[in-house]
Amino acid sequence: MDELSKDAVTADSPEESAAAASPPTGLSRRGLLGLALGGGVASLAVGVGAGLTGGVALGRARAEADAENAYEFFGAHQAGITTPVQEHLHFAAFDMMPRTDRDDLITLLQDWTYAASRMTQGLEVSATGAVGGDAEVPPDDTGEALGLPASGLTITFGLGPSLFQNEDGDRYGIASRRPESLERLPAFLGDDLDPQTSHGDLCIQACADDPQVAVHAIRNLSRIAFGRARLRWSQLGFGKTSRTTSDQATPRNLFGFKDGTANILADDTAALDESVWVAASDEPSWMAGGSYLVARKIAMLIETWDRVRLSEQDTIIGRDKGVGAPLSGGDEFAAPDFGGSAIDANAHVRLAHPSQNDGIRILRRGFNYVNGNNDLGRLDAGLFFLSYQRDPQQFIALQRRLSTDRMNEYIRHVGSGIWAIPAGAKPGSYVGAGLFD
Amino acid sequence: MDELSKDAVTADSPEESAAAASPPTGLSRRGLLGLALGGGVASLAVGVGAGLTGGVALGRARAEADAENAYEFFGAHQAGITTPVQEHLHFAAFDMMPRTDRDDLITLLQDWTYAASRMTQGLEVSATGAVGGDAEVPPDDTGEALGLPASGLTITFGLGPSLFQNEDGDRYGIASRRPESLERLPAFLGDDLDPQTSHGDLCIQACADDPQVAVHAIRNLSRIAFGRARLRWSQLGFGKTSRTTSDQATPRNLFGFKDGTANILADDTAALDESVWVAASDEPSWMAGGSYLVARKIAMLIETWDRVRLSEQDTIIGRDKGVGAPLSGGDEFAAPDFGGSAIDANAHVRLAHPSQNDGIRILRRGFNYVNGNNDLGRLDAGLFFLSYQRDPQQFIALQRRLSTDRMNEYIRHVGSGIWAIPAGAKPGSYVGAGLFD
Repeated sequence: MDELSKDAVTADSPEESAAAASPPTGLSRRGLLGLALGGGVASLAVGVGAGLTGGVALGRARAEADAENAYEFFGAHQAGITTPVQEHLHFAAFDMMPRTDRDDLITLLQDWTYAASRMTQGLEVSATGAVGGDAEVPPDDTGEALGLPASGLTITFGLGPSLFQNEDGDRYGIASRRPESLERLPAFLGDDLDPQTSHGDLCIQACADDPQVAVHAIRNLSRIAFGRARLRWSQLGFGKTSRTTSDQATPRNLFGFKDGTANILADDTAALDESVWVAASDEPSWMAGGSYLVARKIAMLIETWDRVRLSEQDTIIGRDKGVGAPLSGGDEFAAPDFGGSAIDANAHVRLAHPSQNDGIRILRRGFNYVNGNNDLGRLDAGLFFLSYQRDPQQFIALQRRLSTDRMNEYIRHVGSGIWAIPAGAKPGSYVGAGLFD
Repeated sequence: MDELSKDAVTADSPEESAAAASPPTGLSRRGLLGLALGGGVASLAVGVGAGLTGGVALGRARAEADAENAYEFFGAHQAGITTPVQEHLHFAAFDMMPRTDRDDLITLLQDWTYAASRMTQGLEVSATGAVGGDAEVPPDDTGEALGLPASGLTITFGLGPSLFQNEDGDRYGIASRRPESLERLPAFLGDDLDPQTSHGDLCIQACADDPQVAVHAIRNLSRIAFGRARLRWSQLGFGKTSRTTSDQATPRNLFGFKDGTANILADDTAALDESVWVAASDEPSWMAGGSYLVARKIAMLIETWDRVRLSEQDTIIGRDKGVGAPLSGGDEFAAPDFGGSAIDANAHVRLAHPSQNDGIRILRRGFNYVNGNNDLGRLDAGLFFLSYQRDPQQFIALQRRLSTDRMNEYIRHVGSGIWAIPAGAKPGSYVGAGLFD
């Protein structure tokens, strides 16, 4: 391990922090040198440009990215949860490498924090980046995002149950700090999980309005993890199927229905405190300000669904396909009336609705996915479901309630995972620091 | 086969044609009824809206799509070749079903033309679409693009060598009309082709600035093909790695290098006539105004590449990674000087350059792809290479020249296909009509 990682992050403001945090382990001391020559974000760009063949200030385009499109990395909560849902997702699950120790885990989280705090601001993973360093070593940054703005990139880190304890025991001395409810999800009726697209010691949710930016983030974070953690599985997604702010139109999933009409919105702080953020009074205390992420890869039997008559599709969902209104009447945002028979007893909207679940709500943040097609010529497509909740029991209760969902005939849950999402890092600290206090 | 398909497309203007073309086979006569009630594109939208539960004119959002972002489907050449490269790709290869006949192929091409001419204008596949038809039958349109604009969608159709003749013989009575040069590409040094991602009787290239729009197009065209053709393989792509107009910045591929600097541009009509469009004097005459499409799925050994030192990366490509300038000097658009030793004898830019290949040029239109990762935790990623040329020999000659390309150590060609791209359809006709004259 590179010693530079240990005393990482000491600055106060995000910009200083991005500049002052140590370079990722393995990215060498050239990073520090570059930072010494630079000083702040703006001068970094010039510093990088000055080193270029041709003399063009390459870094400038990224440093000058539209500020509205760059989300703060540091804060009370991690970004990427209530952030307005971006157009693209690259989700990745990682496993720690054999024979790694507590310091490896801590420095990995520090190095990831450092790189994420830079990339979310439209910067490269280090000051010397793709082309500003010593030409006789591999570049720090892989370069495919050079010239692209931050593109709304958020990077959200999670800690899986197996990180705290697995068949090898308490590898990192954190077993006693595992949140009691952080454990592999129970089997649900109809589960058809592929271990190749399930679970993982760690996860990273990278969302951006440009897929190249999201892919660049996961690729470079994977590279930074070299020798410490390894990509277990990953999935790209598009066309956000939930909205998290009231000015976002409700998008449609691959069944052609609006999805996310009744989602928890970013400005509903009461609902967020009630249903999404772990409270200071919750256990364990290091999770305060955090959340729990559930990912479910839900394959849709597209071709079968497409042969269902429209009235039956409406009945299954409990909403009108056109405007998304509940079948009990009104417009998209009308409260469904479950008293009469307009909405089927096993319609999706009824079974999933808070009023039918003791008020349980979750914040959904899913994306559509298409992974080509299978040997029968059927699209390998569906919903990459992501939800954030204060306690995993919220998801478990809702998912159990959906066991009689009429939609189940047309979907298969093929991937699953759960991760603790620590609070946001303070400038000068790193994501997950509270776990090691 | 539905008789309505036979006397398809008789109107003169694109709009009339979209309205007057027959509904896709299998999508029933309800389409025609809807058209009779409507009349033009604008009134169609109202017609659809009027049928909705809730009474909201749903079709309107798509019909009012920004005209600048909707490309004409009909024309001298098919769209999607010189069209400014969009952000997203869904490419699909199809095989005809057993026991289909010439009429099946013709009506399929007619039905695809009809649906493509609508979807590229931001309309649904038929007048009744996803929610405007009889609720007691499956909807014509799958609905996930409802409310989305045309998003620059282009749909480009191709005819593979196996369509003209395969092990079952001359299934469609067109073997004698096969372009002599339309045959499966020869094996190239280092090929590692997977038949599951190669070849196909037909292909469709759907490009759009919104992936949901491109996916919607392929899904609905697959659905329309039901019983006649079946999806053989498909691939999503993003982050165009070529530019086709001079106002597009040169994007970067997943090696982090600018790609497409020296591409043929849409306004270079002399180069297009010389190198891309089949001339009226070329054989066969039914291909005049068309082109030939080569697709190569090129896996990149990302992690290996990322460990190569910067100077070596530059040497392999023959360009500077930062600004994309040839190593012989100048800026990105400077002509490379191959006289000296600045550019390695086996650098990619040298071997691929027209000056080193008797002036041979092709129009490239590739995209990056990422299909998750493999069991070793390595990204399954690379370049989905697409090129258009007047004659397949152009690609073959260039690809043979690349046999000593230093880049080959870091790539594997894992998929391949070639298709004849007929000229654009005239309003009132359909793509490929000339083949059946």
